[in-house]
Amino acid sequence: MAEKTQVGVVGLGSMGAAMAARLLDQGWPVAVWNRSPAAEEPLLAKGAVRAATPAEAAAGGIVLSMVSDDAALKSVTTGDAGILSGLGEGGVHLSMSTVSPALAADLAAAHQAAGVAYVAAPVFGQPPAAAAGQLWVAMSGPAAAKDTTRPVLETLGQAVHDFGDVPEAANVVKLGGNFMIAAAVEAMAETFTLLEKHGVSARQAHELYSTSIFAAPIYRNYGGFIVDRKFEPPRFRMKLGLKDIGLALAAGEKVGAPLPFAAVLRERFIGSIAHGRGDLDWTAIALDAAEAAGLKED
Amino acid sequence: MAEKTQVGVVGLGSMGAAMAARLLDQGWPVAVWNRSPAAEEPLLAKGAVRAATPAEAAAGGIVLSMVSDDAALKSVTTGDAGILSGLGEGGVHLSMSTVSPALAADLAAAHQAAGVAYVAAPVFGQPPAAAAGQLWVAMSGPAAAKDTTRPVLETLGQAVHDFGDVPEAANVVKLGGNFMIAAAVEAMAETFTLLEKHGVSARQAHELYSTSIFAAPIYRNYGGFIVDRKFEPPRFRMKLGLKDIGLALAAGEKVGAPLPFAAVLRERFIGSIAHGRGDLDWTAIALDAAEAAGLKED
Repeated sequence: MAEKTQVGVVGLGSMGAAMAARLLDQGWPVAVWNRSPAAEEPLLAKGAVRAATPAEAAAGGIVLSMVSDDAALKSVTTGDAGILSGLGEGGVHLSMSTVSPALAADLAAAHQAAGVAYVAAPVFGQPPAAAAGQLWVAMSGPAAAKDTTRPVLETLGQAVHDFGDVPEAANVVKLGGNFMIAAAVEAMAETFTLLEKHGVSARQAHELYSTSIFAAPIYRNYGGFIVDRKFEPPRFRMKLGLKDIGLALAAGEKVGAPLPFAAVLRERFIGSIAHGRGDLDWTAIALDAAEAAGLKED
Repeated sequence: MAEKTQVGVVGLGSMGAAMAARLLDQGWPVAVWNRSPAAEEPLLAKGAVRAATPAEAAAGGIVLSMVSDDAALKSVTTGDAGILSGLGEGGVHLSMSTVSPALAADLAAAHQAAGVAYVAAPVFGQPPAAAAGQLWVAMSGPAAAKDTTRPVLETLGQAVHDFGDVPEAANVVKLGGNFMIAAAVEAMAETFTLLEKHGVSARQAHELYSTSIFAAPIYRNYGGFIVDRKFEPPRFRMKLGLKDIGLALAAGEKVGAPLPFAAVLRERFIGSIAHGRGDLDWTAIALDAAEAAGLKED
């Protein structure tokens, strides 16, 4: 791909907007669409063109979607004026949202039937990483479509991992990763509570753990949010955490894979949301672990 | 401490032996004692002197103990010819085993009553790290005794974290860390099973996870053992994993800290040992997670 094709970006939440900005910065022509058009403005100012519908955003042949859940993806893809009706023959839909493997499989079949391609390409990393082209991308789908869109993904990510042609493979990888993150947060939440109740500084223990056996961004950063009780603004909202754990459990049930840790996490998230924490960062489950041990919070 | 005092080393399992070897390599005079004397031989060949009893190993004023559990520590400390009877006034017992906080508190009191000091100094890292002086050390106990023994700990470790003077504080930090490691292993075991049942390569997903958000030794190495099904020789024996989770749960019960993940892990370890895996590496709980999903192992 010598020349840079127009890329449509559908869904301009914090992640979608950061991706669109990155593509513009790197010289890609970008068409944007968002359910509420206000989010389009900063990108139009950077040179994006406005698409009136997801179908119109898809007209250039490559369209990237980044929306909040299964229902939103279904709506922008198969609805009236959805992506499927706008993609011309040979077009590719880069589906980057965190959605159920079951929906990915369904949509992949619908795209194939329409003579276009569906590539699942969920990412790890947060919006600032997207803006800097430093995401980690998992992708799966038809080989030719992956070849076509690889330059787009390599603009957004520092690494692109290809999980083959089973349409939903990358979605399972993404759900597994988010589940592992939530599990790390819960393990820290329980441990820090145990320490505090023994009169030991969780902050100091976190310093030891996160500079030794757990010297990884997840432990260093998320553990820091817990000891600092820094749950706002949310980096990743509690409600989305519950959604993703629910998707992991459903994906497990579908293939017969019991996930006992995920089951514990589901109850933890439900309780935390019941305590009014649904719009805090998901590391705020640490408050529930502390309260369960009789520690007073807030 | 301009001159290097003799250090007694009591308990020459793989970790204790590596510590004694490191001290010898760095020019410390070392006296060794082990329940079965065969383990003393390689160290005597390196210049250690043989102590006939733990008490005799303690006669130089600093004695380090590294034994398998509470019962063994009690036996080498308070038994006939135990450490407590051999430490002269001002002597320090560096207690480096992974034991219960409750026992640490009891022994600290017994040492204080005898005019000597008990410093809890459990470590993170494996025997090769001890041999290279690259452990991470958590310590707690009386300030003067910590000052006296810091040069010994700095010979063994790349970092020494001081958790104050509550005698058992460092033990709680150690149990919390081991619990977090076990939780990371369980989260990987569940995730890899979910992936395999979806026809996705766990090996390839592990490559993504452990080079991105989970780029830490625990995930990289332990996850590698899981995908390679490399559970022998054990780096850390399954039975010791159950012991440590039991200690964490007991430490939680004592102060009123519920640990739901630790409760799940306890059942997992019990089941894995029931399946004949007690002497495998503790990452072999991944076999139980896979079998629970109907995957055939062995």
